Amino acid sequence: MKRIEHIGIAVADLDQAEKTYKALLGTSPYKREEVESEKVITSFFKTGKNKIELLASTDENGVIAKYLAKKGEGIHHIAFKVKDIKWEMERLSEAGFTLLNPEPKIGADNKWVCFVHPKDNHGVLVELCQDIV
Amino acid sequence: MKRIEHIGIAVADLDQAEKTYKALLGTSPYKREEVESEKVITSFFKTGKNKIELLASTDENGVIAKYLAKKGEGIHHIAFKVKDIKWEMERLSEAGFTLLNPEPKIGADNKWVCFVHPKDNHGVLVELCQDIV
Repeated sequence: MKRIEHIGIAVADLDQAEKTYKALLGTSPYKREEVESEKVITSFFKTGKNKIELLASTDENGVIAKYLAKKGEGIHHIAFKVKDIKWEMERLSEAGFTLLNPEPKIGADNKWVCFVHPKDNHGVLVELCQDIV
Repeated sequence: MKRIEHIGIAVADLDQAEKTYKALLGTSPYKREEVESEKVITSFFKTGKNKIELLASTDENGVIAKYLAKKGEGIHHIAFKVKDIKWEMERLSEAGFTLLNPEPKIGADNKWVCFVHPKDNHGVLVELCQDIV
């Protein structure tokens, strides 16, 4: 794992959350991006080398809609930047971690991503991500 | 806000969580520190410029014990490094955020800290922290 790439925060209302995080962080969001396959719309803020990714659902059956219904708004995942996602996936799988997708999939922000089950990380949903080049 | 300083993760068993995060991150924790006033014991990992702070309770009535009883293990807070904590506290207070301590208090890792209520941050407990020099 190279470093934290971003923190994903599940929110009910993206416009409202953008206002809040603009006031909190003292900086404006620099892009919005919809990920159709995940049924989410995202908004990104820069904070040092890391990003804050606000996540809102675009579909009442989407993963974020279900998360909000169960747990409410809050931190959804931590994403770590990796150099070689397939190598990291193999390393973690061999160490006993449960990968939620067996092959890297395309996520927001031009990345290959893989999620690691929160039950293996003391309740934390972990995302591995690698830039698509 | 300068940047994310650390992510705090509430765990039930610090020894077990250290093993997990050592395997996940591919690096060992570099220090443990007890914060008596908060009734927690912490363990720190470096990941790039950020830290992961595992938080376990030292008292069944402590804030982490209560968090675990209510929500279970998982991400507890995001801490942002600030240059002038009193200035940031005043700025956020004027912007309508609720500060959980009216004056900076001493936290782990030689820091002045202040917490911002999660209700104002879409469910995210935010910590401001400044190095004590």
